[in-house]
This record gives sequence, C-alpha cells and structure tokens, in this order.
Amino acid sequence: MCNLLKFPSSFWAFVVCVVISDELSCGYETGGGIVEGKLNVHLVPHTHDDVGWLKTVDQYFIGSNNTIQVACVENVLDSVVTSLLRDPNRKFIYAEMAFFQRWWLIQSREIQAQVKKLVSAGQLEFVNGGWCMHDEAATHYIDMIDQTTLGHGLIKSNFNVTPRAGWQIDPFGHSAVQAYLLGAELGFDSIHFARIDYQDREKRKGDKSLEVIWRGSKTFGSSSQIFTNVFPRHYSPPDGFNFEVSGFFEPVQDEPLLFDMNVKKRVNDFIDAALTQANVTRTNHIMWTMGEDFRYQYAESWFKQMDKLIHYVNMDGRVNALYSTPSIYTDAKLASNISWPLKTHDYFPYANNGDSYWTGYFTSRPTLKGYVRLLSGYYLASRQLEFMVGRRNKGPNTSSLGDALGIAQHHDAVSGTAKQHTTNDYQKRLAIGARGAEAVVNLALSCLTSSTSNCTVPTSTFSQCPLLNISFCPPVENIPSGKSLVIVAYNALGWNRTAFIKIPVKDANLVVQDNEGNTVEAQFIEFDNITSNLRSFYMEAYLGISPKDVPKYWLLFQAYVPPLGWNTYFVTQTPEKGGYVSVIDTPQNETVEIGPGSLKLSFSLQSGQLKRINNSRTGIDLPIQQSYLWYGSRADNQPSGAYIFHPTESPPVIVSRSVPIKVIRGPLVEEVHQQFNPWIYQVTRVYKDKEHAEFEFTIGPIPTDDGVGKEVITRIATDMATNKVFYTDSNGRDFLKRVRDYREDWPLQVTQPVAGNYYPLNLGMFTTDNKTELSLLVDRATGGGSINDGQMEIMFHRRMLYDDHRGVGEALDEIACNKSACEGLVIRGNLYMSIDHVGSGSRWRRTTGQEIYSPFLLAFTHENQEDYKASHSTRSTTMDPNYVLPPNVALITLQELEDGNVLLRLAHLYEAGEDVDFSILVKVELKKLFAAKKIKTIKETSLSANQEKSSMKRMPWKVEDRNESEAPTVRGAPVDPSDLVVELGPMEIRTFILKF
Amino acid sequence: MCNLLKFPSSFWAFVVCVVISDELSCGYETGGGIVEGKLNVHLVPHTHDDVGWLKTVDQYFIGSNNTIQVACVENVLDSVVTSLLRDPNRKFIYAEMAFFQRWWLIQSREIQAQVKKLVSAGQLEFVNGGWCMHDEAATHYIDMIDQTTLGHGLIKSNFNVTPRAGWQIDPFGHSAVQAYLLGAELGFDSIHFARIDYQDREKRKGDKSLEVIWRGSKTFGSSSQIFTNVFPRHYSPPDGFNFEVSGFFEPVQDEPLLFDMNVKKRVNDFIDAALTQANVTRTNHIMWTMGEDFRYQYAESWFKQMDKLIHYVNMDGRVNALYSTPSIYTDAKLASNISWPLKTHDYFPYANNGDSYWTGYFTSRPTLKGYVRLLSGYYLASRQLEFMVGRRNKGPNTSSLGDALGIAQHHDAVSGTAKQHTTNDYQKRLAIGARGAEAVVNLALSCLTSSTSNCTVPTSTFSQCPLLNISFCPPVENIPSGKSLVIVAYNALGWNRTAFIKIPVKDANLVVQDNEGNTVEAQFIEFDNITSNLRSFYMEAYLGISPKDVPKYWLLFQAYVPPLGWNTYFVTQTPEKGGYVSVIDTPQNETVEIGPGSLKLSFSLQSGQLKRINNSRTGIDLPIQQSYLWYGSRADNQPSGAYIFHPTESPPVIVSRSVPIKVIRGPLVEEVHQQFNPWIYQVTRVYKDKEHAEFEFTIGPIPTDDGVGKEVITRIATDMATNKVFYTDSNGRDFLKRVRDYREDWPLQVTQPVAGNYYPLNLGMFTTDNKTELSLLVDRATGGGSINDGQMEIMFHRRMLYDDHRGVGEALDEIACNKSACEGLVIRGNLYMSIDHVGSGSRWRRTTGQEIYSPFLLAFTHENQEDYKASHSTRSTTMDPNYVLPPNVALITLQELEDGNVLLRLAHLYEAGEDVDFSILVKVELKKLFAAKKIKTIKETSLSANQEKSSMKRMPWKVEDRNESEAPTVRGAPVDPSDLVVELGPMEIRTFILKF
Repeated sequence: MCNLLKFPSSFWAFVVCVVISDELSCGYETGGGIVEGKLNVHLVPHTHDDVGWLKTVDQYFIGSNNTIQVACVENVLDSVVTSLLRDPNRKFIYAEMAFFQRWWLIQSREIQAQVKKLVSAGQLEFVNGGWCMHDEAATHYIDMIDQTTLGHGLIKSNFNVTPRAGWQIDPFGHSAVQAYLLGAELGFDSIHFARIDYQDREKRKGDKSLEVIWRGSKTFGSSSQIFTNVFPRHYSPPDGFNFEVSGFFEPVQDEPLLFDMNVKKRVNDFIDAALTQANVTRTNHIMWTMGEDFRYQYAESWFKQMDKLIHYVNMDGRVNALYSTPSIYTDAKLASNISWPLKTHDYFPYANNGDSYWTGYFTSRPTLKGYVRLLSGYYLASRQLEFMVGRRNKGPNTSSLGDALGIAQHHDAVSGTAKQHTTNDYQKRLAIGARGAEAVVNLALSCLTSSTSNCTVPTSTFSQCPLLNISFCPPVENIPSGKSLVIVAYNALGWNRTAFIKIPVKDANLVVQDNEGNTVEAQFIEFDNITSNLRSFYMEAYLGISPKDVPKYWLLFQAYVPPLGWNTYFVTQTPEKGGYVSVIDTPQNETVEIGPGSLKLSFSLQSGQLKRINNSRTGIDLPIQQSYLWYGSRADNQPSGAYIFHPTESPPVIVSRSVPIKVIRGPLVEEVHQQFNPWIYQVTRVYKDKEHAEFEFTIGPIPTDDGVGKEVITRIATDMATNKVFYTDSNGRDFLKRVRDYREDWPLQVTQPVAGNYYPLNLGMFTTDNKTELSLLVDRATGGGSINDGQMEIMFHRRMLYDDHRGVGEALDEIACNKSACEGLVIRGNLYMSIDHVGSGSRWRRTTGQEIYSPFLLAFTHENQEDYKASHSTRSTTMDPNYVLPPNVALITLQELEDGNVLLRLAHLYEAGEDVDFSILVKVELKKLFAAKKIKTIKETSLSANQEKSSMKRMPWKVEDRNESEAPTVRGAPVDPSDLVVELGPMEIRTFILKF
Repeated sequence: MCNLLKFPSSFWAFVVCVVISDELSCGYETGGGIVEGKLNVHLVPHTHDDVGWLKTVDQYFIGSNNTIQVACVENVLDSVVTSLLRDPNRKFIYAEMAFFQRWWLIQSREIQAQVKKLVSAGQLEFVNGGWCMHDEAATHYIDMIDQTTLGHGLIKSNFNVTPRAGWQIDPFGHSAVQAYLLGAELGFDSIHFARIDYQDREKRKGDKSLEVIWRGSKTFGSSSQIFTNVFPRHYSPPDGFNFEVSGFFEPVQDEPLLFDMNVKKRVNDFIDAALTQANVTRTNHIMWTMGEDFRYQYAESWFKQMDKLIHYVNMDGRVNALYSTPSIYTDAKLASNISWPLKTHDYFPYANNGDSYWTGYFTSRPTLKGYVRLLSGYYLASRQLEFMVGRRNKGPNTSSLGDALGIAQHHDAVSGTAKQHTTNDYQKRLAIGARGAEAVVNLALSCLTSSTSNCTVPTSTFSQCPLLNISFCPPVENIPSGKSLVIVAYNALGWNRTAFIKIPVKDANLVVQDNEGNTVEAQFIEFDNITSNLRSFYMEAYLGISPKDVPKYWLLFQAYVPPLGWNTYFVTQTPEKGGYVSVIDTPQNETVEIGPGSLKLSFSLQSGQLKRINNSRTGIDLPIQQSYLWYGSRADNQPSGAYIFHPTESPPVIVSRSVPIKVIRGPLVEEVHQQFNPWIYQVTRVYKDKEHAEFEFTIGPIPTDDGVGKEVITRIATDMATNKVFYTDSNGRDFLKRVRDYREDWPLQVTQPVAGNYYPLNLGMFTTDNKTELSLLVDRATGGGSINDGQMEIMFHRRMLYDDHRGVGEALDEIACNKSACEGLVIRGNLYMSIDHVGSGSRWRRTTGQEIYSPFLLAFTHENQEDYKASHSTRSTTMDPNYVLPPNVALITLQELEDGNVLLRLAHLYEAGEDVDFSILVKVELKKLFAAKKIKTIKETSLSANQEKSSMKRMPWKVEDRNESEAPTVRGAPVDPSDLVVELGPMEIRTFILKF
C-alpha cells in the first residue's frame, strides 16, 4: 500500500489521505512535462564536481580527505544511477567526463548497460561533456578544444550521443571564444552559467536580459551565435530547496500518519520562489539548478523531495513543475518564439561586488600556467609524431598527457585557484603525462630518422631535456669523447622556420655543424649567477641533486627546420673555441643601444632605463620605458588572493628608478642584463633577424617579511595617445577591444580602477595610436591592462599572505624548498614586444604567437657524426617537400585516435578585417600536407569531432531590433574528396576525421 | 569490465590489477563466512535510531529539523534495502520497530516483497524488535513487555520470524529483569550492549570477562540465563572504520588507475584493530559493531568499504572478516564450546568515569515519568474493558495509546534525557493515545453497565477526569439539579478491593450512596491553597482556562469493587452537609499522633518532625524521621544534568529543621499538612483500614535564582542497624540486594559516595535490621539509595542549570508557563511507607504495588439515581462471582489483538523464598476467570507471544567452575486444555493466546 496525499488546491485546510494505487507500483506523478499557459519551473538536477580544487581529482572521486571537504563523486554517480533507475521520470545532467570516465571504467557490464539506457532515454544527459569544466580566462583555445574533444569522444563512443548544452556554471567570467567556438562551433544550442559582474546582473535582472543571444565572434556574427542563460543568482537551488542528504532543508512531510504535515507550506514556498524568478525572466519558463558542489552524495535524498514537490505543486496548479534538462529548457525557450537581447564581446572581468574583482587568478601560479602552456604545445607536437609512426594504444602514447592536460584546464586548475596540494597533484599528473609523451617522441624520432630500423619494434636512441627551464640538460653537458652531441629539432608548424637553439654547455670548445657538415655560427654567452643559483636550488629541490659543476655558457645557434619535419645539428668538442664567446661590453655613451639587426633598443647608461625602440626597416621610432612595480597587499576585509586582485596599496610601488646595466653582444643576440632589485632580474634580448624584443624575467623569491603581499607587474610606458583603448586576446584566438573604465552592456560604476580594468591574456595585448601599434606577447596565461593612456602592464607573479575568502582557504603563497631552506617560488618567463605601423601588427602577433606556442622540439643523442649521418635521415619534412601551409593557417590538431582514425584540425589565424592580405579565404592541400600517405575517406565534423558537420542544426533565434546588416561571413566550402582541398575563411577552424 | 586488485599476502610491494570477472556481475568476495582456526571478525552493520531524543520520532524519521541533528531514518531504511538487494552477502540488523513500522507502511508492495525476501534470506535481521530500545532503569516490566510485544507482533505477522538477539546497546545501565525476563523468557539467545561501569569494564577486559552468561533472576537461575556480550568500547566501529557518507574516514582505494592506492595500509589498520580486540575477548570470534547513531543515511557508503575490507583482509589471510549478525556471532560463540564467566544481579549504576554516575536520569522529568506510569496502568485497564466488549480495529481502540507508550519506553524518553521539545512530543502522543483509550473505556462501560443498549452500536454516556492530577474534574464540580453524579469505579485487579475515592467538590452539601441506596460515609476535607493555586496555574497553562471557582472540598469515601468488575456510587445534592467536614485540629500536646486505625504516626508539635511510627496490630514501634533535603549543583566540569547526578554540594542541604504542622482529622483519613519551605508542601496521610502512611508531596517551582541547581530528596531516617544493605526493585519486579559502596563483580573504588550508591526504583525499596522491615513504595520511576545505615532517601525532583555533556545539549530545567509568567515545573506525587516484621513486608509491597499501579478507574455521568439503577447493572464482575485470583497472582495483560485472538498474561508476584506462604506454586482457573465466555483454544507462547512456548529452544552454555547446586526452579506444568488451569511458580509469567 502506498499512501499519497490528495487535496483540492482551493481547500487546504482539509487534507485527505487517499490510496493512489493498490497495485505493485505506486509513486508521485512527475511525468507531466511542460504545460502551456503556465509558468513552467524546470528542475534541472545537477552536481558540480570540480576536477580538483580543495582536494585532488582522485580524492574527490574516491571520497578521501573528507576533513577538507566532504565530497565523493563515486557516491554521486552510484546513487544517481540508482535513483534514475527507480523512476523513469527523473532526470539528471552530468558535466565532468574526467570523473565520469573514472567511474565508468569500474562499473560492471550490467550497470553500463543500464546507464546506456538511461542516456538514450534522456534521463541522464551529458552537458558540456568535456574532460572538465574548463576555465575561460587562463586557457588556450587549443587546450579547450582538446579537453572537450576528449570528453565528447568518450560520450560518443560509449553512448552515441552529442551534448547539446554548454554548462559553464562556475568559471569566473566568460570568454567570447567559449561562446562562439566552444559553443556554437561545437554544436551546442545553449550555454548556461552563473557568474557575471554584479552590476551587469542587477541591470539584466531589471530589464529581464539575463538570457541573451550571444555572438562572441566579430568575424562570424550571427552564424556562431548561441542562446545564453545567465542564472539570476548562483547555480544552487532557491533557498530552502537544497536537498543534500546531510543538509538542513525542511523535507516535504506528506504522510498523514506522522506529525507536522507541511505540504501546503512547502508548495507555497516553491511557488513564491518560482514567481520571484519569473519576475526577472522572459517567457513562462524558468530554470532551477537543483544542485551544488559535489551534491547528490545520496541522490535519493534530492529526488524524493523533488518527486513530492512536482506532485503537489502540480496538484496545486498555480505553476507547473517538471524534471528538465538544459536542452529541454532551451527547446522551450525557442518554442516561445520571442526576441532576445543581443550580447557581443565577453563577460570579463567578473566582480561579485565592488571590492571583489576576480582578476588575480589571471596570473595566479605562473609556473603552473607556464607548465600547462609548455605541455600544450608539446602535446600538439608529440601527437603529430605519434601519428607519423602510428599510435600504440597499449602505450607508450600521448593519452596520459591528454588526460592530465584535460584535467589541468579545470577552472580551479590552470586558474591557479586550487589548494597547494592539489596543484602539486596537477603538476605530478602533467609530469607523468609528459614522460609518456616523451617516450612517444623519442621512439617516433628514432623511427622517423632511422634509415634502417624497423618501426614496428622501435627502440629509442633519443632523450630530451624537460628541465631546460632550470637550465639542466644532462646530454648536452656530458658529451662522451669521440662522439658528437646529435640534436634533432622537430618543427611542429606547417611553415619553414628558422629559430635559435640555446643549450647550456660546460665550455666553449664546441663546434656546431649542420647536417651537411657545414659549421654553423655559434655564440657562447656566459652563465649569469642568477641562472646558476636557480639551477642549483631547483635541482636540489626537485631532483635531490646537488650539482657539482655549473655550465659555464649558453651555446646559441640558429637552426632551420622544414614544416612538420626535422633537421639535425651536431655539437662536437674541439681543441679551441668553437664560436663567438660573448664578452661584457663596457659602454661609453649615455645611450646604450642593442640589436644586431634592424630593431634597436636604447637604454640610458646612467639610469639603466629603456628609453627608445626603433625599427630601421619600418622607420618606427618610439620613446618607451619599461619598469617593474608591485601592488602591495596588507590585511584587509577583502585581501588579494588566489582569485581576487584587490591591492591595499595603489598606485604600485616602483621597484627601481635606476638600475645598472650589463651589456652582452655577439653575432646572434645582444642582451642587456639588469638586476632591478634582489629578486627581479631581467635580460632584454634582440636576436639577429628578429624584429622584436624579448624580455626574460626572473622574479622571486618575492619577500613578504614586511607583512605585505606583492603582485609584480611590468609596465611599458609610451607617449602614445591610446584614448583608453587597448586589445586583449580571447583564449589566444580573437582580439577584443577593451576600453578602460567602460563596459558595453551597462554604465559602469568604477570601484577598482586597476583591478577592474584587468583582462586575461593568453596570446597578448596591444594598443595603438594613429601611427603606431605596440604589441606584447606572453608565454603563458596572465593578466594585464592599460591603466593609463599610452601604457600597458602585465602581471608576472603574485605572492600573497591571506586567503581571499572564495573557498580555497589558503593564501596564495607558493614556496619551494631545498634541503636547507624554503623560499618563495621563483619564476622565469618571457615577454615579447614589437612595434609596427598601425594596422599591421597582426602578422607579427599571429606568426610569433604560433612560434611561442610551438617552439622547436629538441631531442638529443650521442654518436659519431659520420656514423649517425650514414644511418639516419638528418633533415626531412613529412609534407610534400615543395609545400608549406599558407602563413595564415595553422595545423592545430593532427592526432591518431584510438580507433585508428585521424583527427585533423586546421585553423585560419586571422579575423575578418584583421590584416589586409591575410584575412581572406585560403586553401590547404591535404594531398600535399600528407605527402607520404593516402587519404581514403574524409569526414568533416563539429569542432569536437562528435558529429558530422552536415548534420549540425542551428536554432533560429530571434534577436531584438538590431537592424544593422551583418557583413557576409566567409567560410570554406565542403571538401571535395577527390581534390582534398580545404578552404578556410577568416577565423575558421575546420575539423576532419580522416582514414588513411 | 570490473577491475579488482589481487595480490599475494606476502608480497605487498607489487600490486597487480586483475579482471576478476568479465561477465555480467562482478564484485568483491565477501561470502566466505566463518573460517575455523582463524580470528573471525564479525562485521555487524547496524544503525542506532533513537526513538526520539534531540529530535522527535517523526522528525528523525522524515529527516526534518536537521539543524539539530542530521538524521533521517527513512534514508537509512531506503538505502539499506537498496544496498542489501545489490549483494546477497551483505547483512544488516535493525532494532527499532517504531521507525520500521512508519517506513513499512509507506512502501510499495514490490518493496515489501523484496524486504520479505531479505528477511527470510537472513540478510536483514531484526534484533530486539521492540517498538523502541527501551530504557532499563525507569521502565516498568509491564511496559517493557508491552512495547516488545508490539514490535514482535509486527515482525511476526509481516515476516514470520522471531528475533533472537537482545540489542540494548545504548541504555545507561542494564537491569536484571532485562536479562532474564525481556531476554531469556522472551526467547532471546543473547543480549548485546555497550554501557557498563568503567571500572567493571577495565576489570573485565583484563580477565576477558566482558562476555558472560548472565543469570538475572535469583528465582530462575540457570533456567533463565542468557549469553551476554558487552562491547569493549562503544557500539561504534573501531576508530577509522566509521564509513558514514559524510564522514572523515579513509576509504579503501584499490583502483590502480587512481593515485593513492592504500589497500595494504587499510588491511593492516583492520588487522591491528582486530588483534587489539582479540586480546580482550575469549574464543576466536570478535564482533565489530559497524554503525552508530542514525548512520547509514546512505548505506552504500558503508557497504562499499566493508565489501573491500572483507575481500582484501581475507586475501591477506591473517584474520578472517565476514558479514555477520548477533545471532551468527552467538552461534559461533556457542560452537566454540568453552566455559564462560557467570554474572548475576545487574549492571547498575552505570558510570563512565569517576565523576559521571548516570543516576540522575532515574529521576529526571518526574512528571513525564508519572504520566507514563499513570497511563501504563490505564492502558492495562482499558485493554481489559476493550476485550470485554470486543475490540474495534477501526477505532476507537487502545492502539494509539499502546504506540505512544511503546515510544515512551525509549531510553531517551521515560528516562527524561530527551530535549524539551521532544519530551513535549512524547507527552502529546501519550495524551492523544489516552484520549483514544478514554473513548474505549467510556464506550465499554456504557455497554457493560447498560441492561438495555445494543453493544454493537454503543453510545457513550460516560466521561472521565484525566486532569484529576491538577484537581480538575468538571463532571463532579457541576452536577445538574435533579440529577446525581453517577460514579462507576472499575477494578482492574483480580481481587476484591476496597479503596478510597477522592474528588474535588464545590461544597459539602452532597451525600454519597452506594448501588443499593445505602448512604456511604463521606469525609470532606478543605482544599488547601497549594492545591488551589496549582489547579489555577495549570488550568491556565494547559487548558487556557482561568477558573472562576475553586472547589472548596475534597470529598472522600471508601468504595468496594469486585475483581475485573465495577461498582456504582451516587453523589447527590442535599440541603445540609452530607458527611463529616474535617476541621483543623489544634493539638495540645507536644506529640501529635495521627492514624484512624492501627497505624499511628507521631509528630513533634514544636519541630513538626515525624518522630515515630507505630503499628498496634503488629506491635512494631520505630523511631523515625522524615525530612526534605537538596543536593546543590553549581557550574562544574561535570555538572549534574539530565543523565548525570553529580552534586557539587554534598552533603545535601536540609530544607527545614522545624516546620509548623496543620492536623486534619476525620473518620476516613487523618492528615498532617506541612509547608517545609515556600516550594515544598507535604500532606502525610493515614487512612482508615490501611496500615501504611502516604506522603503526598508537592515540590516546586524549585528556585534557581541563587545559581544553584537543586536535586530534591526526602530522607527517612531510623536507628535501624542496616549494615549497608538495602533492596531495590528491578523494573518493578524482582528485588535486588544492594550493598553500599560495594559491587559484587569488582573491588569498587568509591569516587561518588552518594551518586554511586543510587539505584533506580520503579516499585520501591526497603531495608531491614534483625527485627523490622521498613518499606517505601513509589508512584513512578525514580532513584534512591541508602547513604547511611538506617536511612533511605528518594529523589523526587531535579532542576538544573547546566547541560551535563552527554549529548542532549540542554540543562534539565523544566518550566511551565501561564499567560503571565513562567516558573519551574511543580510536581505532585505520593510515597508510601510501611513497617513490618522482618521478612514479612513483601505482602504489603506486592499487594500495595499492584494497587498503586492499578487504581480504580473512575467514570462519571449525571442521571437520576433511580432511573440509572433501573436501566443499568450497577455492580458486577466479569469473572465467576465466586472466584478471585489468588493473592500472589496478577493479571498483567488481557488484550484482544487485531486478529481477534486474545492475549493473556498471568504473573506470579513473589520471588522464590520471598514470602513463607505466597512463594509457592499457585493455580488460576481460566474457566472462572472468563466466566461468561468459552475458551475454544489455548496456546502458550513466549513472553512476547511471537512463538509457541513448546518450540523455544535453550542454548547449552557452559559456565566456569560454579559448583554450588541450584535450588530446583518451580514452574507451572503445561495447561491441560480441558481443565484450563494455569499453574504459576514463583515469579513466573505465563503468556497465552486464547481463542474464544
């Protein structure tokens, strides 16, 4: 027998108990779906499972370390499946495939079969479906695509479905690239999230514009628009409707045999909350996000309450409640057939109140951000090499690096907002993944370069130097006598390329020869103390090795490598010096100029300040200063921390107004070395044949014994009349126009003139006046802005003393320890600067951006030079030797999948109108790209390769009174399988599945 | 695919992942059962669900009010069933039927069928199986039997099983009656609990005597012994093995794909904990109680860990782990075939450290305890009447009172250790239950007394006065002119009986006549102010009525009622006084003597002190004092509270050394009224024809504005040489010998000379010297002791200012509020005292005990006396008019069950050797007991009526070297269905199911 309560809606006082069913099954009526003409409350059951944050991803999965946070994803998935099986009306959505995969792998076939049924019945819907819910500020678009493809592939292969909704509920601001590229181009119909600026939210609540049609791309406009649902509050349910098993909610008590029946009260509570939300929402559909972080530990606790509420609320009849999902909700919104507000640009920066701009995390944990970026490029290259020799599903392969990078894109991972122990876990996973990819690369290069070996059972002869970041590279430092150091440089770009190779060597008695035996010009630059100390400290800290010797020199030479190919250089010991040994120059004039080629930088001898940049080829000459400063942060109600940038001391403190300069010259590079203060060291470089300056900064340990946390920036100052305007990239892809102290969508009330004008950088930023374009490129995710006209600043490092009250519960205070001491973490990185005529900077930015992302991949071995040459192919391309990719196209994915198919992604690098010559339709000839192989079939797909391009449908949204006509969007035509030429319009990325 | 970890036990370092099963089902190997020759760790999964404590029973069930305590029994039962269904090796035990019934009623037939299978397969085992886990100190044995019968009946009728194990894991001390009566006589093979004295526990751990054979009954000895398992610590798992869903445990991580594998560590943890316990336990079987209060909110969280531990621990092989239950464990203990230590007596008092004697709760909440006892007797009587006219399953019936009383026996209910709001809930349930039983009684009496009405559709003409405790009885106070007040007195005892009826009346112009028209001697006693004020305050507080008039007198008369029958008295208005109106005596002599009959009490006129008690019939004359004192309790590390009696100020403060006396005399009763202080009032009474004194005390509001909590006692002091010895009852049944500052089982270290010598009283206590026996009987559960020779003290009331840190989180500070003010709760009760020759007090104690438990049940109506007599049977018995029960037998249950069968329990009232004449085999003639009905079948059963007596088996336990021969136990022979005579040996209780 099953007692259920029935009562007429108009007559609450008398509650009658009725046996609804005397038969086997009985339950609440929850399957009514949408009811036209009523306010429909879409209950969307979800859990928000951070792929690492306070705990590591595995701790979250298994439920260990609960003293930190009570969270066990295994319980969530176990119990959700049980609850869904119990009632076919119930629904649930799940987002994070890194967790789902862990769970799926240990399920019995029986459970797997049940889950497949739940998915195909629409009870369990995957949303987002990437490996994690990636961050949108500190992520590179290639990483976003990769991690999404990983998750979508798992979903597709196991369930044969494609997620329809973007579910970025938690990231701290939302990017344009997310909207159009990881949204519309992925095939999503909608995107849903919680966090937008508090002023923006208030304004949108007022005019019911939380839900918009978002066109994130200037280039694509309406052809890449997406329905966007911004929640009125957060991604939790309305107050009182959080039904977690150990929660404090008031359960619906509908059992007449028990005391305290409260059905009437709870139904009224529900309707009150629904009407409140309806007041800020268009159409008669509202969504309740029925979940929270790591909720549904015992799913039945939620479903039991929702079953009852749906039943009794619908019995009451004033509103209609239903189990729903983002896709059902989006369909209902479309069916309402109204016009929606238009949204362009992005949702950065995010502030949740006037003191809380979430712009610190753009820079938090710069070494993690640097490692992720380094491995992102390495993952791209290693997959190319893996494809060239054939993927080994049983390993070694690149999968664990893909998995680790997928996890690292999480919005508490690369963002720098996880606890330290979790960050260590991310880094450990990345290192393990990198080791696997290293093995792939070593084997692949052994195989590719060998003219004899059998590639099916290859043995590696190569090693690599993953610790070149601390100037540690054993094969270079110990060349056996009688052998040469063989350096194989692989070029992952589709273009011919010349770049510098720089390795630490013990002495200058080395000669460099190319693959034809020609001596290559080499320059030896003495190791500075900063580098030696860094190397010693971190070797001890991370390897437990106390180095006896320190390399004496950097050996630098220029290398040429064909596209998707390699070249070989030999470094051999000689009795005398094998190249130019740089000496310290002793400048005589007040103005010190460096630059072996057309680009010159001028410094003041007296102050050490950079004064001027000049390009003799273009004739541009710009007075310029570069300085280091820090924002101080003392104890405060809202301290700066992992998330928040909220300096207590502003304007920032200038580190040094006068700094000695050490000048090093040579044929290949000229450098100015400067110790700005005991913990900031900078080398400014201009290379032969390069028209940009490179600033290599070494920052740390940042002292905090004065009780002041410090956020260290560099500021580039000019007299350019930039009129508040500057440009920053969106996830390394599009550039967005930024206007200081201004938001397009609402009249900004400025509360934080610095933090409120910071934007995330992944590629770089630039600014212009009517003559000149000044561009900066970065080597990792960071934050920056233009706080005064003519200036740009970039934050390099942060070390804070207080938690910023956003949950992580730790101060962002990174330290490193060797045997004897701990000290603040030191970072080393590069900033690149170029000046161009206004409107022509994009070529440098786009091309150099690719080079920074994909440096030469170096592998080493020791062998007699002639022996090696006799048995190896020393220089080759895997493309048609007469073919290169067009300069406006990059190969962003080339990967053999587990099933043997090959994933190919080609990206146009320019936006519409960005460059006069390059912002045009361009062609790639696949036959020449894959010169040695024959393509059997080609299938164009969505961005994440989980559905055929031709089957993708676009929802016909109506947008409020925008009468401006859009410029036509240029996109490539479908590929003819016979000629296999891929056309790419500006910004177009096309994804293919190939069979060879 | 399902990955499971396998490894050789000797080779931890290498962990190998093996696919155990590639087939549909896969899982951990947990079904190995017991392994001989190894240490067997019996994992007994359980939840401990208090039937009300911090939350009410319904709040606990539904999971509301979680801010107080996160607990939802519905989740426990839902999720346990799901987890058990998932794996047939898993087991679970459940104890509290009050919760189970709530859950069972709302399950679908499908779930019910599944649960039935789980029970019959032994996966779900009911332990205890009563309505609650009753208290053992403040409970009357009849209530214990009733509540157990209620639960066992539910189990039997739904599952056709009989629980085998007593599971009293939490009560704060354990009674002899629990062991033998609610244990062995119930058919239990074992009893299991956690709480015994800390000194006792240490001693027992030292000599491995935690597990014993307990013989709780002197009378029955080995014939009612039971295997008793006292846990080494508490009823939770060993540290680190509490696997609650939101807990902080370290989960077993056996998945090689994840980081932090810890199988080896967790297996070692398990084995360490097992060996520690094995060190204090006999045989190679130990029990782990895998649960805690309200745990298994998500059962899978527990079972998942236990599955893994059993699997890997057994793979390791050093010990053997298994899912088990108390009955499996007990079978294994028996099979070990060793001898066990013997335990007699009981486990009172309980202390968990030297400052923490749990002897306060014997008295906590005296009004709740009084109400429970009042309704216990009322329930017994109302079931008799219900049986006589036929039970109405659709109501009104006595079921809701049975349910409420069942709940009230919980060890945080009648114990007085629940929060105030929960206590209010218990009282509300009792009041609702009493209202239902009142309706049954009114209808039954209307039917039984009517000579005309059709009993199948009876209408009630009677009403009752449940508020006589506050002297409020409307039908008596408002007799319509021309009609008499008709009083029907029902006698629930099996004996003819004369007792006093006492009702509040407006004036003395009333005459009392018996059913034959004879005038009955009446005495009018003026209302005292204390009673008037009490009546006014509580009428306002509880009824919202501000009374206009206060009754002027108590009307007292003596009534005679036949056994299981009734008699009728008529109270009629007359122009003049209708009886003796007592006046206040003005004593002349220093010695004031009261007592209309052979018992005299002498008081000092000057001091007001009781000086002497004298019985002229027996010739006993004893100097005696009675005084009030209180133990003071200020702030302390271990304050006195709901559980703990730990006065900071001892010896107690004497309330008054000199108190005026007011003497009231009359033909039926003589009284001394004394105001000991502003908040202690006492009336000492001696009735005509009664040979005991009655002390009616009114205590409260206890003042606490001096910052001192107070525990109020009365102390009876004599010069008897009692030599530390006194006797207290066990649950109102057996009397146990107590020796001050002594424990039979270990050398007591005395830390609390008062609190450590308190024992629970339900019937009373007595002490003796070589001549005299001084007996006290109580009207409710309370605590008392003999702190000095010749003295006995009983605690009546407690009002404390601090919580005592045992979880309830409130000070025991009961208050009552009327419209204008709140004040400490006032209690009124009775203490009864008798003196007898040594060895002959038991007759008074046993007989008077029955009379106190079962007072006349009074029903009232208004009708013309002659009209009433013409249409009613005014005096009758339902037994054979020439038959009464023997004086040593009580009818403790007579109840028609839902299925129409009749439950009968007869109890011998004397222990072996207690009384020269009455401690013998005695016979009850059922044919005469049920004179008007014909017994078709009779079936003797276990005490809880859930199995036939003849099928009960006893386990053959061996006991260590006790060579003393036991006296043979006398028990009645099986009943011959033809003559239907029931024999009862001393202390025997026999239970029958009859069909009429």
